[in-house]
Amino acid sequence: MTDTNSPYLINLALTGMVPTRAMSASVPLSHQEIIDDIAPALELGVHMLHLHARDVNGVPTSDPEPFGRLIESIRQLPGGREVLVCITTSGRNDPGFASRSRVLDLDGDMKPDMASLTLSSLNFTGQASINAPETIRALAARMLERGIRPELEVFDLGMANFLHVLIKEKLVHAPCYVNMLLGNIAGAQANPMQFAALRQHIPEQAVVAVAGLGHTQLTANTLGLLFADGIRTGLEDNLWLDRERRQPATNLALVRRAIALADTLQRPLASRQWVRARLGCD
Amino acid sequence: MTDTNSPYLINLALTGMVPTRAMSASVPLSHQEIIDDIAPALELGVHMLHLHARDVNGVPTSDPEPFGRLIESIRQLPGGREVLVCITTSGRNDPGFASRSRVLDLDGDMKPDMASLTLSSLNFTGQASINAPETIRALAARMLERGIRPELEVFDLGMANFLHVLIKEKLVHAPCYVNMLLGNIAGAQANPMQFAALRQHIPEQAVVAVAGLGHTQLTANTLGLLFADGIRTGLEDNLWLDRERRQPATNLALVRRAIALADTLQRPLASRQWVRARLGCD
Repeated sequence: MTDTNSPYLINLALTGMVPTRAMSASVPLSHQEIIDDIAPALELGVHMLHLHARDVNGVPTSDPEPFGRLIESIRQLPGGREVLVCITTSGRNDPGFASRSRVLDLDGDMKPDMASLTLSSLNFTGQASINAPETIRALAARMLERGIRPELEVFDLGMANFLHVLIKEKLVHAPCYVNMLLGNIAGAQANPMQFAALRQHIPEQAVVAVAGLGHTQLTANTLGLLFADGIRTGLEDNLWLDRERRQPATNLALVRRAIALADTLQRPLASRQWVRARLGCD
Repeated sequence: MTDTNSPYLINLALTGMVPTRAMSASVPLSHQEIIDDIAPALELGVHMLHLHARDVNGVPTSDPEPFGRLIESIRQLPGGREVLVCITTSGRNDPGFASRSRVLDLDGDMKPDMASLTLSSLNFTGQASINAPETIRALAARMLERGIRPELEVFDLGMANFLHVLIKEKLVHAPCYVNMLLGNIAGAQANPMQFAALRQHIPEQAVVAVAGLGHTQLTANTLGLLFADGIRTGLEDNLWLDRERRQPATNLALVRRAIALADTLQRPLASRQWVRARLGCD
C-alpha cells in the first residue's frame, strides 16, 4: 500500500455509546439531534453513517425501533438514499447474539445497508467488550442472509487475522469494508510501526477507513488519507478539536477538518455512487 | 515515536544538483536567484538552508568560493544569523575526500553551521553516488575538528545502521540531525512499513526531518509532521505541486504548503533559536 490519490470516503460516527450531554454539548443523542447533524453532513458529501441509538434516558439501546426510525428519516433527506447506513451491533452492553442481531431484521425503508462487526473481544478504557467467535460468526452469517454488508471493526492485529479466517470460511465476501481503529488503550496505537503492521495484515481487496480514538483521531485520519481509502471521524471517537481539550468538537467541524486535510493532501472526495459501486452495494 | 505536537522545523533544499532552467523556471541557480528565494523563506520562518552551488554555466560545483559568498550574503539577511546554513559535500560528481572537504575550510562569516553527510553509496535514477566508508569517516572527522555539524542523509535502512556505527566510533555526537529521504528509486519508499522500519532504526536522540523525492514529497512531509521533528522541502527534491505535474512548484510555494499542513495537523512552527538550542548549535 503506497500513497495514493484515488477518491476517499468519510464514515461519520456521530453518537457512539459513551458520550453524554455532560461530556459534550454537541453530541447528538435524540432522534432529532442525530438527524439534524446528518442533514448538513450529507451536504458536505459524507458517504457512510455509523449509527448508535439511545433510549429516552440517553442510554445506548439495541432495540431495533429507534434504529428503524432513524433510517427511515435518513432516507428522506437529500442524499439519504445514496448514503450507506451502518448500524451498530455492539455487544458492549449485552454480548449475546439474540439481542445484537435484532437490528438486522429491519426491513423496507428501515433496512440498513451495513452493520458493524467487531472481530474479537477487547478492552476499552473502562470496560470489556465481548465478541465471542461464535457470536461473530452468527452475526456475519445473519448479515449474509439478509444482504447487509459488514462494517468490519479492526482494533488490533488479531482482529485482522480473524478477518482472514472469516473470508476463508466464506462468512465475509470481497470487497469488504474495514474500519481500522487506532489509539484504544488495549489496541493498536497510531504510531508508524503499529499502523504499518496492521495495515499490511488487512486483506488486499478491502476498502479501508482509518479512525483514531481521542486525540489520535487527527493522526489516524491523516494516515487514512495517505495510505487507505478514507477515514472515520465523528464525536463517537473524539470530543475535542485540539489535543489540549479546550476546543469542543462538533460532528460537522470534524467532517470539515477532514475535508480540508484531504484537499491539502490532494485526495479527491469520492461520490456516494462511487463508494456504493466500489463496495458492490446496490 | 508516537504522534507529537512539539515544535517542528523546516529544512529548505533550494537548488540541488539536478534541476536545470529547462526543467523548472523557478529553480534558483545563480547566487542572486538563490538569495532572492532565501530572503522570503526566512520571513516565513525556515530554520535550515541546504545549499548547493553552481558554476557560471549552471553546473554543480564543490568550489568553496560560491558557497562562501552565499553564506556571507545569507548572514546579512534578516534572520540570516539564526538560520542554520547546511552546505553539501555531495560526491555525485567527484567522490573523493579532497574535493568534497574543501567547503569545510570556509571560515568567519563564510563558515557553514552544518554540512551534508550521506551515510552510504547509493543509486539515484540515472547515476551512482559513491560515498565510501573511509570518505564518510574522513568527512565526519573533519566536521568534528571544524565544529561543523553533520546534516546526516539517510535514504535506507543500512544508512541508519551506519549512523549507529559512527556514533559508536564517536565520529558523530548527540544530538544529531537526520534527513530521512524517501522515494528514491534505490531507497526506502514513502509507504507505511518502510517508513516505520526506517524511523525506528534512527537513533532515539536524533532530530529528524522527512523529505520525499518527486511526488512523494507531500506524503513524506506529512509523515515528518506526524512522527518526526519536521520536514525538508524545496525544489531540489520535487519540481511540481501536483502529482500530475501540471502545476510547477516554487521554493516558497512548497514552504507555504508545508506550513499550512502543519497548521492543520496542529504542530507549532519552532523558532530558529529553539532549533539551534535543540541541536546544540551556538
